[in-house]
Amino acid sequence: MDHQNFQNIKVPTALLNNDQARRNIALMAEKTARQNIQFRPHFKTHQSSAIGEWFREVGVKSITVSSVRMAAYFAKNGWDDILIAFPVNLRELSEINELAARAELSLIVESAEAIEKLDRGLSAKVKVWVKVDSGMHRAGIDWRDRNGIEQLCKNIFSAKNLKLQGLLTHAGQTYHTSSPEEIRRLYMESNRRMIDLREYLQSNLGTALKVSVGDTPGCWLSEDLGSVDEIRPGNFLLFDAMMMNLGVCRFEDVALVVACPVTAKHKNRNEVVLYGGAIHLSKEFILHEQHPVYGYAVEMTGKGWKFLGRDNPVVSLSQEHGIVQATDEVFNQVEIGGLMGIIPVHSCLVVDTLGYLVDLEGKRYETMRQP
Amino acid sequence: MDHQNFQNIKVPTALLNNDQARRNIALMAEKTARQNIQFRPHFKTHQSSAIGEWFREVGVKSITVSSVRMAAYFAKNGWDDILIAFPVNLRELSEINELAARAELSLIVESAEAIEKLDRGLSAKVKVWVKVDSGMHRAGIDWRDRNGIEQLCKNIFSAKNLKLQGLLTHAGQTYHTSSPEEIRRLYMESNRRMIDLREYLQSNLGTALKVSVGDTPGCWLSEDLGSVDEIRPGNFLLFDAMMMNLGVCRFEDVALVVACPVTAKHKNRNEVVLYGGAIHLSKEFILHEQHPVYGYAVEMTGKGWKFLGRDNPVVSLSQEHGIVQATDEVFNQVEIGGLMGIIPVHSCLVVDTLGYLVDLEGKRYETMRQP
Repeated sequence: MDHQNFQNIKVPTALLNNDQARRNIALMAEKTARQNIQFRPHFKTHQSSAIGEWFREVGVKSITVSSVRMAAYFAKNGWDDILIAFPVNLRELSEINELAARAELSLIVESAEAIEKLDRGLSAKVKVWVKVDSGMHRAGIDWRDRNGIEQLCKNIFSAKNLKLQGLLTHAGQTYHTSSPEEIRRLYMESNRRMIDLREYLQSNLGTALKVSVGDTPGCWLSEDLGSVDEIRPGNFLLFDAMMMNLGVCRFEDVALVVACPVTAKHKNRNEVVLYGGAIHLSKEFILHEQHPVYGYAVEMTGKGWKFLGRDNPVVSLSQEHGIVQATDEVFNQVEIGGLMGIIPVHSCLVVDTLGYLVDLEGKRYETMRQP
Repeated sequence: MDHQNFQNIKVPTALLNNDQARRNIALMAEKTARQNIQFRPHFKTHQSSAIGEWFREVGVKSITVSSVRMAAYFAKNGWDDILIAFPVNLRELSEINELAARAELSLIVESAEAIEKLDRGLSAKVKVWVKVDSGMHRAGIDWRDRNGIEQLCKNIFSAKNLKLQGLLTHAGQTYHTSSPEEIRRLYMESNRRMIDLREYLQSNLGTALKVSVGDTPGCWLSEDLGSVDEIRPGNFLLFDAMMMNLGVCRFEDVALVVACPVTAKHKNRNEVVLYGGAIHLSKEFILHEQHPVYGYAVEMTGKGWKFLGRDNPVVSLSQEHGIVQATDEVFNQVEIGGLMGIIPVHSCLVVDTLGYLVDLEGKRYETMRQP
């Protein structure tokens, strides 16, 4: 189960198949180009300046991030059109002002209170989007509250330092589905809500408004992205067990596994004890027949990894331990001191916590976690 | 809900009540001293050299860590008796050899395969403990497998570079209980298994063996720690919502909350949107009436925080968003741009991911995450 190429891996390590990651980027870039839609990928998935360059190579000029700090990191690395896709954090106004001075910054608002406080705290004009809840019910103003949204747009028009771009949503309801058909249907439903809302507002306000949408399941599976102006998926770069189980991607589309040292084996229950726990894989899980699964084991090969189906799940995780319930074949193959690869449930969380990735040639990619 | 003292907190921040943390340390230190038991606290909970000094001040000389890297960090900070409480990772033999040259290092083994490979790879003698599964069924050799354990001890005696210390267990089954009485009972049951096993082995092998045990629930709640030689709890330093819900600690024993910026409010469902998600609080949860809870909100006050019971739970978490289901009173009190404190479910995971803590006076404590 081990190989020369990976002999330098001593601790749980995010292993990146960069050919696959680049294929995933190319597919999304081609689809958006064909449909003349702005591709503003979410960089929270990789948080790495070097991987960011792969997007630049296919023509990407605008990006999405999830924090002011992440915006600052990518601004420092040459990105100058950055959307912070999170209801604006008013405690970072000075950092926002610094950033706005050197990059084209877009922020998100969803209340009169935030608009007023933001406008007062800004020292220069920034772009803003109104965050609309198109069905996920996490953040944003309800798409049916047309008067409320219209009022927010008017507040933005009256503000000194805010330039309204349009309406933004994240249709995360696609993560709670049972088939690709349902994902496509929810993506279209969310888009329809956004586009109807835009028509209403444009006619009432007399201004052109853009629509920005963003989930990987909907954007990956829908051939026709619809009449939106921009999409902001991120996870499709790496994919993970959650995306596999939703039917969004295949095993072979996954571009990241966590390589974990094997530290013990328990024959009586076919369990393999990995050095690889909650602080490496995250406690995100998917349910399999009512039992939580924290990832699926793959076999490490000379050139990367080989998929083993779903028969070797990670069945429990504590801070640094992971337990794989293995088939007889896999159990017997695994050696103490060897490596086992795990497809994590949520690759974005893994990259965030581990702080770097290593590709199949051993090249290391630092994320913004590292100094 | 906000205050001058915390005006410098701009992003989700682990806020430490150091008086409370020191009280928790003092209680555990006194109990072990009274019973003449070695106190070897687990430092994975704080991962901070500065907080480690608080333990030194009450006489602690030996510590527990969960990784080779953590051992190296604390060795560099003057600790010279370090137990790595994890089945030995054979991929870090060179790091282990380096460490063993400058500190008294103790390792854990649980199989003939690991003993043989470890012995072969070591360049100097190290102490080892046999990891025994006393009922948790995560790692270790089953306490009932007396022949197997005896054989492992003999293998260690025959090894060139291994010095057998004794038997070690982590009775993590105390985390899956419904009352303090059950925790005390399981702690005693696990201890009894370990002590019986020791007696059997001592008489068969003719060598004195120590017993090391380690969970916070059992060690905190049991007045009489039993005939063990050493205890290794860690979490009691900070405590968290999981310990509260198990009945191990009270609200007021908790020494850590995560201060999170409030970024939005949704009146129609009394939800507060926090900048504070899975990458800050971790996806560890406890179940409340079948619903997952990722933490409990507290009120930030001038001097720290005030407990609000369990009426304001964090009901969902995505990568950077947290959603608090608030009471009317708390909902109305909270301001966008203010702070909300969250008692996390598992404080060790929070400290690991955030990488630093800030005390109520604003002093910053770096963990080993930081350079």
